[in-house]
Amino acid sequence: MPYPETTDAFTVTDKKNWSTFKRQEVPLKKFEDYDVDIAIDACGVCASDVHTISGGWGEDIPLPLCVGHEVIGKVIKVGSKVKDLKVGDRAGVGAQIGADLTCDNCKADQENYCPNQIDTYGAKYPDGTVSQGGYSSHIRAHEYFTFKIPDGLDTALAAPMLCAGLTTYSPLKRLGAGPGKKIAIVGLGGLGHFAVLWSVALGAETYVLSHSPSKRDDALKLGAKDFIVTKDEKWAESWKFKFDVILNCADATDKFNLSDYFSTLKVNGTFHMVGFPDKPLPQIMAQAFAPNGCYMGASHIGNRPEMIEMLELAAKSNIKSWVETIKISEAGCKEAVERVYKGDNVRFRLTLVGFDEVFGKRA
Amino acid sequence: MPYPETTDAFTVTDKKNWSTFKRQEVPLKKFEDYDVDIAIDACGVCASDVHTISGGWGEDIPLPLCVGHEVIGKVIKVGSKVKDLKVGDRAGVGAQIGADLTCDNCKADQENYCPNQIDTYGAKYPDGTVSQGGYSSHIRAHEYFTFKIPDGLDTALAAPMLCAGLTTYSPLKRLGAGPGKKIAIVGLGGLGHFAVLWSVALGAETYVLSHSPSKRDDALKLGAKDFIVTKDEKWAESWKFKFDVILNCADATDKFNLSDYFSTLKVNGTFHMVGFPDKPLPQIMAQAFAPNGCYMGASHIGNRPEMIEMLELAAKSNIKSWVETIKISEAGCKEAVERVYKGDNVRFRLTLVGFDEVFGKRA
Repeated sequence: MPYPETTDAFTVTDKKNWSTFKRQEVPLKKFEDYDVDIAIDACGVCASDVHTISGGWGEDIPLPLCVGHEVIGKVIKVGSKVKDLKVGDRAGVGAQIGADLTCDNCKADQENYCPNQIDTYGAKYPDGTVSQGGYSSHIRAHEYFTFKIPDGLDTALAAPMLCAGLTTYSPLKRLGAGPGKKIAIVGLGGLGHFAVLWSVALGAETYVLSHSPSKRDDALKLGAKDFIVTKDEKWAESWKFKFDVILNCADATDKFNLSDYFSTLKVNGTFHMVGFPDKPLPQIMAQAFAPNGCYMGASHIGNRPEMIEMLELAAKSNIKSWVETIKISEAGCKEAVERVYKGDNVRFRLTLVGFDEVFGKRA
Repeated sequence: MPYPETTDAFTVTDKKNWSTFKRQEVPLKKFEDYDVDIAIDACGVCASDVHTISGGWGEDIPLPLCVGHEVIGKVIKVGSKVKDLKVGDRAGVGAQIGADLTCDNCKADQENYCPNQIDTYGAKYPDGTVSQGGYSSHIRAHEYFTFKIPDGLDTALAAPMLCAGLTTYSPLKRLGAGPGKKIAIVGLGGLGHFAVLWSVALGAETYVLSHSPSKRDDALKLGAKDFIVTKDEKWAESWKFKFDVILNCADATDKFNLSDYFSTLKVNGTFHMVGFPDKPLPQIMAQAFAPNGCYMGASHIGNRPEMIEMLELAAKSNIKSWVETIKISEAGCKEAVERVYKGDNVRFRLTLVGFDEVFGKRA
């Protein structure tokens, strides 16, 4: 049974062989009035995909599973109540594909914190269908979680913005990144490179903190004012009370001396995390926050207004993510997730492309 | 050598016998142009005093040590440059007695985060003198850290406001406690009871969270709208996304299931700590903050504008702290710190009084 009942997907079928992909049809949810069907042209490869299929975020994953939540393609069908999109539009889907849209959080534009949110893959719709991601031919999404991609943005470069981009844009915006603010980005990987791009575009004085001295040139090319190597045990001493916000995009927070990072924050500054490692944070005393009254927190993607604003900013400021493309196939998916898992040699984001060659035109 | 070279103090002289006090003269810092000398009439007994002398916050304490940083008395001498106080005024000193007053933090009214701050006891002045607290006849303080006590406030009731009061008032104010906000206070002890009084006076809808069902009546008497018992494992389920701020005044955060507390915060809400236990926080994942994008942090006392505002609010709103008085003496100090250490049977604050009987009039 092909589309519209199913999507033709590259799936993980066995937790032990989490990087082995099998192409097969998997069911789509029932088509409803607010739904939009997209024929996918590109899908970014997110660390979340790897944390999920490798069991790092928990062993309980529904199989077969098709991951991928940085999706861009062409709209090929819209439900009767869809207003903002039409067939032929270029549209994207990020890491969230559903919410009740009626709770207090949703009503306050906090749908990314809706208790009934539905993740783009591996979550259950009310009808029992498991949501399936973008390493596949089609995706079906409520229009609220489907975004028109502004002209001028390249599909492969824009795809990773749908999750990694929003995940970094939202906290920077909420924490006031802009002129007069000093923002430090920790970890120059897939998330971190977006954080630098946004922070600079928003007008903040932007610093990169990294364990790897080799990333200095990239940081400066992305627009950072300075690059701070955190390998030296005393690195923090020259940066006391300096930053309004530290956005931690690193995947090794368990190895951090958090007090050092905290000490570089201004009074009441914020250490904000967007990378979610498999391991817990180092244990600290409540007193660790006291020398400057700082805060630590984290966020989960962003909301619809922030997504739209971010995409507009990217188009207006001609922001180009650093992306390497890989052609989608069983081998391509394997290569992609294994490279992200190892974390080496990815500068800074991978996007699966070549969907027409594999799945046909799907108009 | 009596005052003005020394103060007549009840001191701890031996870490092993931290609740045994010996009366003796200890040196005061050299009198300078901005200094104010106060003949002490009352001193609150703070959990900090006990954490310090019992070694809970570290073994490195200078002996002999006179603790106490909730001090009120009569001004008996002022330096040539003192402007805001005169001999005869009633004045108080809190937990901070010095700062450089020239750094960026001080210039931004964040002197409580000055890297050169001087604690009211147990810290070294630039001249090498160790600062000595309020379980004694006199205190000498820079005018910036000396506060006129508004008429209408009772000395014994106002003394604990100088530390416990400010420590809770400052974060409530900075986090926006006021009409339309829902504030939860965790732990109804010395700090917590002040937090409830301020939160209610500021106009916030105030809740008390406590392990002890027996504290319900007190919470309601203090003005709380509701009392939530956190003993039941599922207590948090009825309070999801409810509070703007949780102010944690409890001294057992190491036993908390922090995720439960976090889950009761609104999106981007704040779990703020003002009690500093001897033990570290429970270890958590970065993900614990993600379901509502919340923050965790702490603060250190408050600044001068907040102290003045708080004392004015207390006078204007006729706020009465719940205080039990104990007459100062070697035995009185022992009883006071042992009762605070045990944490039982203190509702909610102890103030040492009767200084004239022990030290004379000291006009």
